[in-house]
Amino acid sequence: MPRIHFQQQLAELKDKLLAMAALGQQAVESAVEANLRRDPKLCQYVRENETAINTAQRDVDEMAYELLAKEQPMAIDLRFILAVIKINGDLERIGDQSMSIAIRTKDMIEMPEVELPVDFAGMGEFAGRMIRTSIQALLNADAEVADSVLEMDDEIDRMNRVAHTELIQVIQKHPEFTMQALNSILISRSLERIADHATNIATDVIFWVRGADIRHQLSLALD
Amino acid sequence: MPRIHFQQQLAELKDKLLAMAALGQQAVESAVEANLRRDPKLCQYVRENETAINTAQRDVDEMAYELLAKEQPMAIDLRFILAVIKINGDLERIGDQSMSIAIRTKDMIEMPEVELPVDFAGMGEFAGRMIRTSIQALLNADAEVADSVLEMDDEIDRMNRVAHTELIQVIQKHPEFTMQALNSILISRSLERIADHATNIATDVIFWVRGADIRHQLSLALD
Repeated sequence: MPRIHFQQQLAELKDKLLAMAALGQQAVESAVEANLRRDPKLCQYVRENETAINTAQRDVDEMAYELLAKEQPMAIDLRFILAVIKINGDLERIGDQSMSIAIRTKDMIEMPEVELPVDFAGMGEFAGRMIRTSIQALLNADAEVADSVLEMDDEIDRMNRVAHTELIQVIQKHPEFTMQALNSILISRSLERIADHATNIATDVIFWVRGADIRHQLSLALD
Repeated sequence: MPRIHFQQQLAELKDKLLAMAALGQQAVESAVEANLRRDPKLCQYVRENETAINTAQRDVDEMAYELLAKEQPMAIDLRFILAVIKINGDLERIGDQSMSIAIRTKDMIEMPEVELPVDFAGMGEFAGRMIRTSIQALLNADAEVADSVLEMDDEIDRMNRVAHTELIQVIQKHPEFTMQALNSILISRSLERIADHATNIATDVIFWVRGADIRHQLSLALD
């Protein structure tokens, strides 16, 4: 098979992954939007969207496996395909977490509305920016942009910790709001996990571009 | 490179993955034990163990990447190496979740002890059995044993739901126990997630042995 054809296939694989990323991004945004607007239809949409994400994930994986099997990619191409497989897994988990948010939100809509000290709009926007930036880094093979995603992770961890602390105080002062506050704690955690997956994506981009595995240097530094 | 050497390397890769699995298994058991015995030293051990898991993960990944790069594995060998990379990721996440349990447990130890309606011993034992069984399936290339792990997943989901409901009732009746109950809700969720990772491992074994990607057929069936 001529080499140029292989490069076309790699480009196609990248396009498929970008479509997958768009679905993941949309899932997060819709889940947060559903929560802010208390919109059960949008919750349902996120759940249906999850099926589309799963289909897209399988599609990307299959193409990646096929390229590994039929071509014998070397060095940077091999690292790219392996990065695609990992990023694909993280995007699928972003879809899972978005579905968790939608399920929690649907529960909350059925309860009396309570004003709670948590900024889902801000957290969602931040997590969304982390995904967008990590995908941008992938598109441009830009390890420096990927680095900037790693730096953003502390901020959303902080937002999650603050929300967690304040929501516990709500439960202690107003046990009648326990369910709403608890659902909000879990949604806040999901948003923090989504940001973790964006961080994983950035790490995989760095692995692809620089050829170095920084995963656990990073986790040691963050300990 | 002669083919027999390649088969030896595959066997070595499998051994490395089994060592990684032992670390993951041990992390779950120690985290649950730390909780049951309220033992801060065991919590610390789990946190240190996590570093060992991360090192082992990198080691497995590197060997898998090298085999993909240097050999041109076909069909079942390729599927095996790809399964190893995925299983390795799930084992690492089992380590992460065990560390979460240890952190939550350390928080709880610093609070007054409360009798709570949650069976961590039972849940931990069940999740541990799921990991063991999925690794057994891997060892014996036995897709039927892997199938049995998928069937176990419903039971731990049920245990988690029951714990969640009962712990919320505790919070509503005894707001002074909010922190303890909330930590227990999060630990219960971590054990349920650990079981999910065991399910993922079983699915990857099936993919390797049968050559079929059942991942999303399954998730559709469970929706």
